[in-house]
Amino acid sequence: MPLNETHDPDLRSWVLSANAKDADFPIQNLPFAVFRLRGEGAFRIGVAIGEAIVDLSHPHAVTLLEPQIAGACRAPALNDLMALGPEAWSLTRLSLSRALRAGRSQADRLQAALCPQVEAEYGLPARIGDYTDFYTSIFHASAVGRLLRPDQPLLPNYKWIPIAYHGRASSVCVSGSEVVRPTGQVRVTGAEVPVVMASQRLDYEVELGVMIGLGNARGQPIPIGDAWRHVFGVVLLNDWSARDIQAWEYQPLGPFLSKNFATTISPWVVTADALLPFRSPWGRAADDPQPLAYLLDPQDRMTGSLDVQLEASILTAAMRARGHLPERLSCTSSRHAYWTIAQMIAHHTSNGCNLVTGDLLGTGTQSGPAPPEAGSLLELTFGGREPLTLASGQTRAFLEDGDQICLGGWCQREGFARIGLGSAIGTVARAGTPG
Amino acid sequence: MPLNETHDPDLRSWVLSANAKDADFPIQNLPFAVFRLRGEGAFRIGVAIGEAIVDLSHPHAVTLLEPQIAGACRAPALNDLMALGPEAWSLTRLSLSRALRAGRSQADRLQAALCPQVEAEYGLPARIGDYTDFYTSIFHASAVGRLLRPDQPLLPNYKWIPIAYHGRASSVCVSGSEVVRPTGQVRVTGAEVPVVMASQRLDYEVELGVMIGLGNARGQPIPIGDAWRHVFGVVLLNDWSARDIQAWEYQPLGPFLSKNFATTISPWVVTADALLPFRSPWGRAADDPQPLAYLLDPQDRMTGSLDVQLEASILTAAMRARGHLPERLSCTSSRHAYWTIAQMIAHHTSNGCNLVTGDLLGTGTQSGPAPPEAGSLLELTFGGREPLTLASGQTRAFLEDGDQICLGGWCQREGFARIGLGSAIGTVARAGTPG
Repeated sequence: MPLNETHDPDLRSWVLSANAKDADFPIQNLPFAVFRLRGEGAFRIGVAIGEAIVDLSHPHAVTLLEPQIAGACRAPALNDLMALGPEAWSLTRLSLSRALRAGRSQADRLQAALCPQVEAEYGLPARIGDYTDFYTSIFHASAVGRLLRPDQPLLPNYKWIPIAYHGRASSVCVSGSEVVRPTGQVRVTGAEVPVVMASQRLDYEVELGVMIGLGNARGQPIPIGDAWRHVFGVVLLNDWSARDIQAWEYQPLGPFLSKNFATTISPWVVTADALLPFRSPWGRAADDPQPLAYLLDPQDRMTGSLDVQLEASILTAAMRARGHLPERLSCTSSRHAYWTIAQMIAHHTSNGCNLVTGDLLGTGTQSGPAPPEAGSLLELTFGGREPLTLASGQTRAFLEDGDQICLGGWCQREGFARIGLGSAIGTVARAGTPG
Repeated sequence: MPLNETHDPDLRSWVLSANAKDADFPIQNLPFAVFRLRGEGAFRIGVAIGEAIVDLSHPHAVTLLEPQIAGACRAPALNDLMALGPEAWSLTRLSLSRALRAGRSQADRLQAALCPQVEAEYGLPARIGDYTDFYTSIFHASAVGRLLRPDQPLLPNYKWIPIAYHGRASSVCVSGSEVVRPTGQVRVTGAEVPVVMASQRLDYEVELGVMIGLGNARGQPIPIGDAWRHVFGVVLLNDWSARDIQAWEYQPLGPFLSKNFATTISPWVVTADALLPFRSPWGRAADDPQPLAYLLDPQDRMTGSLDVQLEASILTAAMRARGHLPERLSCTSSRHAYWTIAQMIAHHTSNGCNLVTGDLLGTGTQSGPAPPEAGSLLELTFGGREPLTLASGQTRAFLEDGDQICLGGWCQREGFARIGLGSAIGTVARAGTPG
């Protein structure tokens, strides 16, 4: 998928809100979501343009698409469309790009298929089969390692293996879903016996989520050079984490209840096609070891890094009550990742493990090298030892009930139109009664 | 679900093979599977009786069932039936038990719905949403711990938390599926740099798999006293493991590629109803700590332990060529588990994590206290240091290409009919070319 006419920065749409400076969804973006208008029953597939949604199930949109693609777009999830493969995705993008361009004759007809985003509610973009979470930021791994193992922050395998673990697919939820503070076993420092309590060290993690469009057969690894053909697109992902539960449970098999109570993703899947202009060379240091052969690809070396600007902001209950705006906590980029998305996919399937259409791969917290580029409170507050003071005067070591965390993301590069990822929002609700 | 007429040990069936001594599927069992006859296209739901299968999609079987249950049984997976809940499961069992009893007038009609197991091939019993693997045998945890940490075999959290990690749902496969030896990163002892190679330490693990019939809403834990209402039944589960890949990859987030290339389960789901006679008091030691409140239930203390005899046998390529019978490697029981199935479910949902109909929970390797009760080669050969010598004269530290591992399981108790779980078989195939 080389750059093509859909990436032309001079394109404008007859949907005027798409032409606004800093719009997340200009005509160069065209991300997919599953939506309905408030009060409606059935979810359907839509494409964002400015402040509107093209309802792909609407008869006037259906006529733009090849019959097989139109059929796949009538489902209440992206799986069928994703299973058609990258040529079908690109064709759909091209058709929509052309139909939405300023001056096109379809404008009158397609107008009827537009819905206002402000009246929409979103479903998960796909039926997620398996969810895997990676650990691709060496800055995050080192920062967390320093808290746990000051003498050996980075484990010996880190620069060789794209470390990952399996997450929980059932509790992946779309932006806006409530996040109930988890209750769990915690062993207070020095105590003999653990207690069950609401987590006191609830955190967010700023990640990208990769939506797998095409899978592979069990036993058939995906070579790194083919990996991007399997990527439908990306979303923002907040890997909520209960640090106190994690510390007590994670040996020897890794995080479990500390992570699986909720994972929030943004509703709009920004496609691999739309992200093409924002790929760049690996950001590794010159003295880092060369990856093993199955993780090494000349194309990936030149274009494997994806530069998505990422930020997390907080709006506490008190800030909301006083009409304050959210305050930014983290500001980073996915270009800092040590492992690329292609390497994640090649590694995941290198043993024959089968990816499936609709699988979700998290990148892990995308912390950068500078302190404000840390993608979690654990890092920003040094394990809670140095709480942040917000502009409101409130302090935060970890999240309090009522805190709303909003992830945002966008891509910007000289010579191309800026595109946005929308947002992934979750508000912490008071813990329920222990089960 | 108390004991009832379906458990009567004196019941006999007009399907005569069900009355054979040591039959896995007498009329007191009635497990469910998804099957088709060789050469057919569509999978459907069946119930085992002796050496036959009652095809629940057959018109003469459909008339036995309530309309809603019959509708759910027309699917090519058990999910719809499981979602109807425990009363529907028990009703189905009762109807089938009555219709299959010796002397019943339905015999003539139902005969037409019988298929021979010998001509059947099986699908996965359910669409598996998420797969979680626990670590419930303290003997397994201690044996593995002794290899890794001689000074501290059992970690401090073990007796407090039912340790678990998320596994890979997409690579769960049914008995008979090929298991390709995985290729992966391994760091040979003393080497600076890892290499990519076919695993040299491929192992099996003897486990039970719990099929979740009813889920819970996110944020709503399942109290331990209700847990069994959510269990549809159990299967045999072989958690194939590449120990050399595992050793290099598992820090800090747990096993990943060392486990997710394949997990084999048996096709027949033996229901919670059928297992009722084989539950017994916890097997914990008197000086073990009392579980925390959410893991403590008087009923579970008295009946939480499930006594399924489990065994693993090997048939090497050479044994097969010479016409030898399989040789038993492991012989254990799930009654040795430190944590019960109800505790697994209560813990998994205690933080609000939602289980979904069709989820699979592995128990972890069910090793017992005596050396031959070890449920993996890792334990039987002390990390490969003391290879086994088979009756054929061959030795095994870990599995060789062509080795077939067969898990078997059954329940036996004075005053009740013996019931079997069938088998979970997998044969190791030569590694493919690295991806």
